[in-house]
Amino acid sequence: MADDLPHVLILGPPTVFKSYEKQFSEKFHFLKPWESSIPLHQFLSTHAGSVRAALCSAAHPVTSDILKNLPELRFIMTSSVGTDHIDLHECRKLGVKVANAGSLFSDDVADMAVGLLIDVLRKISAADRFVKAGLWQQNVVYPLGHKLGGKQVGIVGMGRIGFDVAKRLHSLGCIISYTSRNKKPHIKFPFCLNVQELAAKCDILVICCALTNQTHHMIDKNVMKALGKNGIIVNIARGAIINEKDLLDCLQNGEIAGAGLDVFEQEPNVPEEFFELDNVVMTPHHAVLTEESTRNIYELVVGNLDAFFSNQPLMNEVVKV
Amino acid sequence: MADDLPHVLILGPPTVFKSYEKQFSEKFHFLKPWESSIPLHQFLSTHAGSVRAALCSAAHPVTSDILKNLPELRFIMTSSVGTDHIDLHECRKLGVKVANAGSLFSDDVADMAVGLLIDVLRKISAADRFVKAGLWQQNVVYPLGHKLGGKQVGIVGMGRIGFDVAKRLHSLGCIISYTSRNKKPHIKFPFCLNVQELAAKCDILVICCALTNQTHHMIDKNVMKALGKNGIIVNIARGAIINEKDLLDCLQNGEIAGAGLDVFEQEPNVPEEFFELDNVVMTPHHAVLTEESTRNIYELVVGNLDAFFSNQPLMNEVVKV
Repeated sequence: MADDLPHVLILGPPTVFKSYEKQFSEKFHFLKPWESSIPLHQFLSTHAGSVRAALCSAAHPVTSDILKNLPELRFIMTSSVGTDHIDLHECRKLGVKVANAGSLFSDDVADMAVGLLIDVLRKISAADRFVKAGLWQQNVVYPLGHKLGGKQVGIVGMGRIGFDVAKRLHSLGCIISYTSRNKKPHIKFPFCLNVQELAAKCDILVICCALTNQTHHMIDKNVMKALGKNGIIVNIARGAIINEKDLLDCLQNGEIAGAGLDVFEQEPNVPEEFFELDNVVMTPHHAVLTEESTRNIYELVVGNLDAFFSNQPLMNEVVKV
Repeated sequence: MADDLPHVLILGPPTVFKSYEKQFSEKFHFLKPWESSIPLHQFLSTHAGSVRAALCSAAHPVTSDILKNLPELRFIMTSSVGTDHIDLHECRKLGVKVANAGSLFSDDVADMAVGLLIDVLRKISAADRFVKAGLWQQNVVYPLGHKLGGKQVGIVGMGRIGFDVAKRLHSLGCIISYTSRNKKPHIKFPFCLNVQELAAKCDILVICCALTNQTHHMIDKNVMKALGKNGIIVNIARGAIINEKDLLDCLQNGEIAGAGLDVFEQEPNVPEEFFELDNVVMTPHHAVLTEESTRNIYELVVGNLDAFFSNQPLMNEVVKV
């Protein structure tokens, strides 16, 4: 019976699929290579004739090689905001539509950026470790944190998420500036021409831009040195926007003061040297993920797959063909 | 030479004294019983004739017994906002003025309340432990957190700190209600007659009131049950406002979902059962403490001691005589 349902390929299961597999499976027949014993390449060839739609997330790249193996593919739905894991250029060439999560996650991501920043500034996770290790009752002195209000915060990338982070930190008393590909006429916060200039004037950088060839390793040792010894970096965008080796060096050598990181260069692998650092707070690429947002993305994915299979307009089309 | 300076008794050193002892000691001669080998009672008798002012914090109570041993005492400066550690009734009777930190810490405390709440909702400290334990790269699934926006937040105690917490969480998309001794005419948020009613309508309680006979153990199992299984409690006020045993029971049995706690009933002793709970984030009574606020409280304490010894008006007098 499930075979009568429209076929949808998933290279690896996004969180929304893990949470709503039962509901999804009532509407679509999912092809799951990770449950198959045959190699991916062969799996794709076997199903090439029936795969017109795919669901993906940042964890499983859709490369040109995969695209070439799926001649009937016409639609990729990613449950993420970022699309750096999809070869968009090839999609355009091959006539494959792509849709993403749009601004559905931006409140949750912005809240996480605020949470990570307060955590690093006020040393909350480190304090929690301190108390749970029984050190307070041994009268060990716990180090002071820093005040949030009055801090100069630089937003790197003033899209929807950047703006939602800026609004929140502005209302918490921070002084906001930003850099972005272009100055945004409707944004009242001061614009800096580049990230180096932004870092030089700021205490804190919050990375909110997309990962592209231009932003890859954009936050490097030079930017960190410009930010300075009391500087804090929060990254809720993509790991590879930061040169992770430079970040580790700067954190280890006190060239910046701390970091709040939801994303990493080689997820789920985080260099173990980070684990030792008390001034780093890390979450496992969960800035977008709440029970509430997962419900919302479920509804968006189902809605878009339904729309695709019935030739209706899609929500949040990134590549239109 | 130091003996010519005005004498000030400190029962135990507040954080501001530890941070600024050198600067303080250029202006005042401090009597430090914790550095003396003689018992406190005898120490106080020895210096009874010269002690006209004392500096204290929440960690070292100023009881009626201590007050009776200091017949010349006329001024107590506490570096805290709360004054529950000082026998104010006895101070009034004996003609001892008391001054506190006023609203000097309220931004920092409110930021910490927000930080603790986002941390519990979005499981940040727990996620940090998860990543640092290397569980992410073992593909263990990390549980979803909850969205901040749209949550019903009840503020318990609508003083300056309560208001600063309310403003922040309102701007982050929460729906605010409050309870307080009296309805505040200038506050636009809905008022509840008591904490039970507030808990029944809310997802989250943030405790911001003073510790008094009326508020002692006010947050008990009944309130927690009214808050419900998805409920979260944040306490940045005083530990004993919550019945800590009830809180532990409710957390262990899933009768509420989590807690962010900066304060405890018997500081610095925290019941070890709390250490095992992944849904509890704890900080060592540091909500008021940042490098910036400590500098400010130093200036306030010096200013008030100077004012007292030169018969000038005091800032933030709590007991006027």
